[in-house]
Amino acid sequence: MSNSKNRSAYAAAGVDIDAADRAKALIKERARIARRPEVLGDIGFFGGLFEFKGYENPVLVASADGVGTKLKIAAALGRHDTVGIDLVNHCVNDILTCGAEPLFFLDYIGTGKLVPEQIADVVKGLAEACRNARCALIGGETAEMPGLYAAGDYDLVGFIVGVVERPRILDGTSIAPGDTIIGLPSSGLHTNGYSLVRKIFGTEPTVLKTFHAELGSTLGEALLTPHRCYLHDLKPLLPRIKGLAHITGGGLLDNIPRLFRSPIAAHIRKESWEVPPIFKMIQRQGKIDEREMYRVFNMGIGMAIFCSPADADELLAALPGARVIGEVIPGERNVLIN
Amino acid sequence: MSNSKNRSAYAAAGVDIDAADRAKALIKERARIARRPEVLGDIGFFGGLFEFKGYENPVLVASADGVGTKLKIAAALGRHDTVGIDLVNHCVNDILTCGAEPLFFLDYIGTGKLVPEQIADVVKGLAEACRNARCALIGGETAEMPGLYAAGDYDLVGFIVGVVERPRILDGTSIAPGDTIIGLPSSGLHTNGYSLVRKIFGTEPTVLKTFHAELGSTLGEALLTPHRCYLHDLKPLLPRIKGLAHITGGGLLDNIPRLFRSPIAAHIRKESWEVPPIFKMIQRQGKIDEREMYRVFNMGIGMAIFCSPADADELLAALPGARVIGEVIPGERNVLIN
Repeated sequence: MSNSKNRSAYAAAGVDIDAADRAKALIKERARIARRPEVLGDIGFFGGLFEFKGYENPVLVASADGVGTKLKIAAALGRHDTVGIDLVNHCVNDILTCGAEPLFFLDYIGTGKLVPEQIADVVKGLAEACRNARCALIGGETAEMPGLYAAGDYDLVGFIVGVVERPRILDGTSIAPGDTIIGLPSSGLHTNGYSLVRKIFGTEPTVLKTFHAELGSTLGEALLTPHRCYLHDLKPLLPRIKGLAHITGGGLLDNIPRLFRSPIAAHIRKESWEVPPIFKMIQRQGKIDEREMYRVFNMGIGMAIFCSPADADELLAALPGARVIGEVIPGERNVLIN
Repeated sequence: MSNSKNRSAYAAAGVDIDAADRAKALIKERARIARRPEVLGDIGFFGGLFEFKGYENPVLVASADGVGTKLKIAAALGRHDTVGIDLVNHCVNDILTCGAEPLFFLDYIGTGKLVPEQIADVVKGLAEACRNARCALIGGETAEMPGLYAAGDYDLVGFIVGVVERPRILDGTSIAPGDTIIGLPSSGLHTNGYSLVRKIFGTEPTVLKTFHAELGSTLGEALLTPHRCYLHDLKPLLPRIKGLAHITGGGLLDNIPRLFRSPIAAHIRKESWEVPPIFKMIQRQGKIDEREMYRVFNMGIGMAIFCSPADADELLAALPGARVIGEVIPGERNVLIN
């Protein structure tokens, strides 16, 4: 018996090991652009290796995340090279809220039917976004699971590890009443609210491919716009920042309080920025209550920055599109939007 | 507008944020047993924080993995507290092959319908196995995605980070012809081959709950036996070991060559161990070709150890159930089993 390729019974059970091998080769090729000198060995070993040096009192910061059902919009449009960008940027932004910069990333793709070229497109997006964030793509797992996922469906999960020097951890403890809250524009829905969006618009390609003047694009293009990465804009400014809230699922209302360790609140003035057209269209078409809109969607603010009023002007000048959206007041770790 | 709980439209779209909140509370409680002093902060922040110190030339080793459709067997039996053990032990074994010991772990659960108590059971297994491996459970993500997963279905993904001092990395480069191959017993199928198993036996609870004398248990119990963790057995012996192959999907035939960097081969003598009854039953019932059995399943060997013949006796004496299963010969990075 040798390791030749008679895999009939397993293939009949819906698991195609040869497709997995082809996918692996394509993944390796696509992932090559996202390397760092600290990476030892090559993707394909049992674990990814990353040499860790040059820090004084390092704290590793890790996060796991998914893309949610934005995947279903991507699948409906047959466009698989952007969801990887969403995933990496979401993860990069998450650890940035602790003050951390990325070291390495791993992905997981679970699918009903492994289509190597589709997987390669997903990894292309992952690798591009990793390279942009100077994050090494050091491994991952692709699992074909007929019976758990429908053919054509897949889930995409990311795992990031970054590092911050302990004295520079951003944890929000210094945030106090009177502090300024600055909002950074999102590029769209980022990765949240897609189950609601699909309920409103469905996923018919004809609907998604319709151009809307108010969006300046098709609905599908507006919905697929990748999650914005805030790393390069914010990294040089971290010493001026007291806290960062990444506005993901739960919106401003749920994500800002995650920063609060004391009896304070955020007062957000919703007239201080223009809600982008895609959110207005969703609200109108779905007849969604405004409060719910602010809980489900980022409403145009992808990152909320907390700083001393004395530092606000410097931050505003350095950050394109940034604007003051509110201030910190005494409260009960809550958010008022009016 | 305040952050009160009117979430009707999103709930109507199949996403239950209140269930997510309940799940989060249960997860926090279950995860508490798997802490380490290096962990800063608490699960629930945007990133998990782990202070990293005490190493000279550390290399971080990371791996991502899933449980595969063993999940479907667990679901059919309504038993959700063992799959987390499978996942953690699989990941721990993967990085152990590089010589690394675990630091921390994150999980991802994607589900069609979020059932907080089910998630809590999954996390109970994760936390128990993490505690056993002295691995901190520092975060995770739970995503309710109606339309991607069927109600009652979920996927479970794990990410582990461990560490090894650079001079102690196990990479198999010193393996040479004449070296001994020692096999460590698996506890069952571990986490591979379940799509084929489900094709043969189905997932009817009455079938899974039938007792079989040859198994000494019900079929379901035999199939759900958790993946064995080899960390504590192997850690003190790593200086005597040249390479480790974790026998996962692809079996001995595909996993052993991942270690080979030079023109060598493994000669495995299949008479050197007794294939456990569950594999014999699968082969018989499924009329599976023997070659395919060795490619899909571990066949009773969960970890293959490569060592100098001079060290074999010491390893055999220290490792319960270990036996010599073959030796290294000249070849083309392949495996011969006869």
